[in-house]
Amino acid sequence: MGDIMDIATVVGIISAFGLVLIAIFMGGGLNIFINVPALMIVVGGTLGVTMINYPLKDVLGVFKVVRKALFSKNMPTNELIEMFIDFAKKARKGGILVLESELKRVKDDYLIKGVQLSIDGIEPQEIKDILETEIDFARSRHQLGAEVFTTMGTFAPAMGMIGTLIGLVQMLQNMEDPSTIGPAMAVALLTTFYGSIMANIMCIPIAGKLKTRSKEEMLTREMTIQGIVSLSNGDNPRILEQRLLAFIPSNQKKS
Amino acid sequence: MGDIMDIATVVGIISAFGLVLIAIFMGGGLNIFINVPALMIVVGGTLGVTMINYPLKDVLGVFKVVRKALFSKNMPTNELIEMFIDFAKKARKGGILVLESELKRVKDDYLIKGVQLSIDGIEPQEIKDILETEIDFARSRHQLGAEVFTTMGTFAPAMGMIGTLIGLVQMLQNMEDPSTIGPAMAVALLTTFYGSIMANIMCIPIAGKLKTRSKEEMLTREMTIQGIVSLSNGDNPRILEQRLLAFIPSNQKKS
Amino acid sequence: MGDIMDIATVVGIISAFGLVLIAIFMGGGLNIFINVPALMIVVGGTLGVTMINYPLKDVLGVFKVVRKALFSKNMPTNELIEMFIDFAKKARKGGILVLESELKRVKDDYLIKGVQLSIDGIEPQEIKDILETEIDFARSRHQLGAEVFTTMGTFAPAMGMIGTLIGLVQMLQNMEDPSTIGPAMAVALLTTFYGSIMANIMCIPIAGKLKTRSKEEMLTREMTIQGIVSLSNGDNPRILEQRLLAFIPSNQKKS
Amino acid sequence: MGDIMDIATVVGIISAFGLVLIAIFMGGGLNIFINVPALMIVVGGTLGVTMINYPLKDVLGVFKVVRKALFSKNMPTNELIEMFIDFAKKARKGGILVLESELKRVKDDYLIKGVQLSIDGIEPQEIKDILETEIDFARSRHQLGAEVFTTMGTFAPAMGMIGTLIGLVQMLQNMEDPSTIGPAMAVALLTTFYGSIMANIMCIPIAGKLKTRSKEEMLTREMTIQGIVSLSNGDNPRILEQRLLAFIPSNQKKS
Amino acid sequence: MGDIMDIATVVGIISAFGLVLIAIFMGGGLNIFINVPALMIVVGGTLGVTMINYPLKDVLGVFKVVRKALFSKNMPTNELIEMFIDFAKKARKGGILVLESELKRVKDDYLIKGVQLSIDGIEPQEIKDILETEIDFARSRHQLGAEVFTTMGTFAPAMGMIGTLIGLVQMLQNMEDPSTIGPAMAVALLTTFYGSIMANIMCIPIAGKLKTRSKEEMLTREMTIQGIVSLSNGDNPRILEQRLLAFIPSNQKKS
Repeated sequence: MGDIMDIATVVGIISAFGLVLIAIFMGGGLNIFINVPALMIVVGGTLGVTMINYPLKDVLGVFKVVRKALFSKNMPTNELIEMFIDFAKKARKGGILVLESELKRVKDDYLIKGVQLSIDGIEPQEIKDILETEIDFARSRHQLGAEVFTTMGTFAPAMGMIGTLIGLVQMLQNMEDPSTIGPAMAVALLTTFYGSIMANIMCIPIAGKLKTRSKEEMLTREMTIQGIVSLSNGDNPRILEQRLLAFIPSNQKKS
Repeated sequence: MGDIMDIATVVGIISAFGLVLIAIFMGGGLNIFINVPALMIVVGGTLGVTMINYPLKDVLGVFKVVRKALFSKNMPTNELIEMFIDFAKKARKGGILVLESELKRVKDDYLIKGVQLSIDGIEPQEIKDILETEIDFARSRHQLGAEVFTTMGTFAPAMGMIGTLIGLVQMLQNMEDPSTIGPAMAVALLTTFYGSIMANIMCIPIAGKLKTRSKEEMLTREMTIQGIVSLSNGDNPRILEQRLLAFIPSNQKKS
Repeated sequence: MGDIMDIATVVGIISAFGLVLIAIFMGGGLNIFINVPALMIVVGGTLGVTMINYPLKDVLGVFKVVRKALFSKNMPTNELIEMFIDFAKKARKGGILVLESELKRVKDDYLIKGVQLSIDGIEPQEIKDILETEIDFARSRHQLGAEVFTTMGTFAPAMGMIGTLIGLVQMLQNMEDPSTIGPAMAVALLTTFYGSIMANIMCIPIAGKLKTRSKEEMLTREMTIQGIVSLSNGDNPRILEQRLLAFIPSNQKKS
Repeated sequence: MGDIMDIATVVGIISAFGLVLIAIFMGGGLNIFINVPALMIVVGGTLGVTMINYPLKDVLGVFKVVRKALFSKNMPTNELIEMFIDFAKKARKGGILVLESELKRVKDDYLIKGVQLSIDGIEPQEIKDILETEIDFARSRHQLGAEVFTTMGTFAPAMGMIGTLIGLVQMLQNMEDPSTIGPAMAVALLTTFYGSIMANIMCIPIAGKLKTRSKEEMLTREMTIQGIVSLSNGDNPRILEQRLLAFIPSNQKKS
Repeated sequence: MGDIMDIATVVGIISAFGLVLIAIFMGGGLNIFINVPALMIVVGGTLGVTMINYPLKDVLGVFKVVRKALFSKNMPTNELIEMFIDFAKKARKGGILVLESELKRVKDDYLIKGVQLSIDGIEPQEIKDILETEIDFARSRHQLGAEVFTTMGTFAPAMGMIGTLIGLVQMLQNMEDPSTIGPAMAVALLTTFYGSIMANIMCIPIAGKLKTRSKEEMLTREMTIQGIVSLSNGDNPRILEQRLLAFIPSNQKKS
């Protein structure tokens, strides 16, 4: 599931940006679409305004959240279920302490922490409370990330329009030579173009991806909590499986 | 009801697209409205951005949901009620196992599953729980479908505007020959045109249809649950009818 | 109240459309504002798209709801209260069966049905349940009507813009004769004009009217339920009056 | 508080309209901005559409609500508290009937009604119920007023755009004499100008004022209820003061 | 945390405004972008309209809220926790009265008030009630501040458009000399430019900052309440620490 999504993101970015670039090259070349001051006013201005809006640590934290959303993988739910069944069987045979050695193979910090709490003999209800508190904080971190990108997606076109207005005013004040009007207006439009690209091909879809990734991660984590509570309770592996399968829609179970 | 709605969709699509085509042909011909790069930037770009926004499996899953929404039929509610009355009568006479043979005539998987659970002797409350869980998953699948189309409906005009900006900048940078300005601007406007068509004649009405279809399907399924629970409880056919009729507004009962 | 509102609707339609027509005639004449293909693309296209969005029966049902909202009258609340007091007095003297003959003078189906249930000796609580279920269905019918008109009010300007884009592209591809540019652009703008009229002078205000009418009708019906329950309970006419007056704000009672 | 707010409204209206007028006079004169048909289509059309949307009595009632919101004063909260303390002291000494003569000095109908109920010996809980019902009706009256103005604020720019489209179509159909194009377009833009003024300097800020006034009035009335209930209960003046002060934020108490 | 955020605000304002200024200077100079009447109509008009919308004291109060949001610092949460641990240890040794002398070092009025209540021997539950009431008032003050700036952010572009319409009408009525058209249109666009700057670089980001600052301050104050209640209860310093750490996400605790 993680793999497929990364491919989707890559394909999406390549196709959206690629098609824009193709349209640009078919019409003459890239150089008339590159304008460093216009780029600065849109990208720099949008980041500047976002930094007025959010504390610096939130803006910086967002990039970490995005990197994680685009590149890290969630364990697919069916693998997660199989792993818990395996853990449950081993714990039944050799006691829960056996899982200590199994944890080395696991990469998900959240899962390791949960199993470790279980091994340490913490009460299931208390494990649940601790893990749920972490989910709440993670959820609000994700929401903040999506919110920051949505905010950037509304400021970018506004900065683009401000840049275009600056260009238009300068052009209109200086129309002696009619042959310069066209190119000057073209340059003025570039900031609107950059603002629209930044909002619609970057910020808004990334905000959307953060939201969908967050939902997936929350589902995985809730299944993890259920699995660890079942382990701590010493549930029968079959019952544990039933409880975890209840999180997945039936048409996905078959496939 | 299923039939009528399909006709509405077909009539709607034909009239909306047809009127656009008539306006195009009356003004000269279709060829000035066909531009493959413009089409690619709007359709491809919108799909690309949507694939950044949603996992690949959700985007692909949407097309299955749409096909089902446009072509599959719900059983009309009055037929559903008659069928349940018929089932109830037969179950009263020959016991619930008699329904096994009746199921061959039924096409709705959801209904078959429910009756099968009843024949297998599962407790009514448990049947209800199982079927309601499926309704919840189906509802969120429908909501996701409508959401994806709504998202495409907001990205399509944005990609259209990006394409138009590209065309405008290219035209403005190259205005030596005044006779080319008109046609170049016409081509630049085509992406806005495509984006507007894609959003307003396709994505947004389809998102709307998914929502209304979902409501209808949910109503049918809730009636199905009530019917199956009544069957399992061995309710009198008249009482079963009363319970199912309670789902339908009185002015529709008469007609 | 019913009468006054109808007058408001008529005055509103006449003044809004009339002022538009006056502005059109002062500027030269109606003929340059009539364009059948433009009208078809906006009105036909909007209806087509609405029929993709909603099932045919909902679109057709909407017109019935509108006709009722614009032309039928609710009984004014003070008349309703007087009628119930009169009923209560007669029922006190001659028993509730006396009301059977009174019902012939009543025009409101909902009221007739309620009083009939009361005469038939149905328990007050059960009468209340039956009548409240009908209110719920009526409310969702009204909401659907308002929703369909709001949807049309968002599609109409979009179809207008699509028509204008078609006209602009055709004009820009064909600019040899400068004297045709103005009129061609005028025709292109007509679809935007029609879309704006259709949305802002028809669909959106009618959606608003449906909502306000629905609120009024719901109030009348809730008063009717209270009145019938009071009748069934054999309440003293003075108490019945008090209970019904509680639905009306004090500053309206005086006037 | 009432006084200060009136000044704010007056200053706001003068500065906003005044600055618009200054800009108009600096650019040549008022006469090119006056166009009676344009004014009629925007103001008349907006009122017409609003009368389709709302029942006549609601549209008319709105003007009464606005007049009250702009010109009537709420008693400042500190004066209200002092008055209640004074009442409580007098009632302690001479019995609650003493307040009858005090009421002549009071201008607020709501307050008079409440104290009168208390003098008449109605139970505190019943007084509270009666007065709270009136608050609910007043609140929904205010909300309706704000809603009507918000609706007008959305229709006014739409009517302005319709007027501008009419002017543009007429101008484009009649471009033989290039010297008339500019003035004709200027006149066409006037409806957009009027619509924007009507929405942004009148309707929307007045809707905002109605909402803030409503909140203030609700606060005053809730304090009034508390005060009257305290009077009826024969509370000690100090306790009555404490209870009323609890409605006011601490940083306002000091000033 | 307070320090970093101020830097972010300063950097944000400098970069956003700086980039706009750079774009202006690169295109010729600042003088063509300065127009006092245009500035007056946008800034004065927006303030005027805001003063119609909100009572004067709310508009004035907003500037105090902003100054506090931009310049005052919240105590970082880790310092707050350390301080409470220190207080708890001292109170354990020398009794709660010892804290009286510690309060001189504290700058936060809210904290001082809370500890003072604790020293005065008020019951923990009552302290909590008093402090929570203050939080509620502070929260609604912050929300009002953000709301006023959001309102200004919607009126500023509207006033800009009104100014541009005035300029356009004046220009269109006076086109004898073609060489004045460009500069006149440039001046007309300046109000749109100012409105866009005022909304997107000032009002909307400041409204956002008020919201994020408010959330932070509410968190600090809730921790303060918990700390003071723990002090009053004579909690063990370790338990007090645990209770305060529960407010902070785990990934921030480590850093």
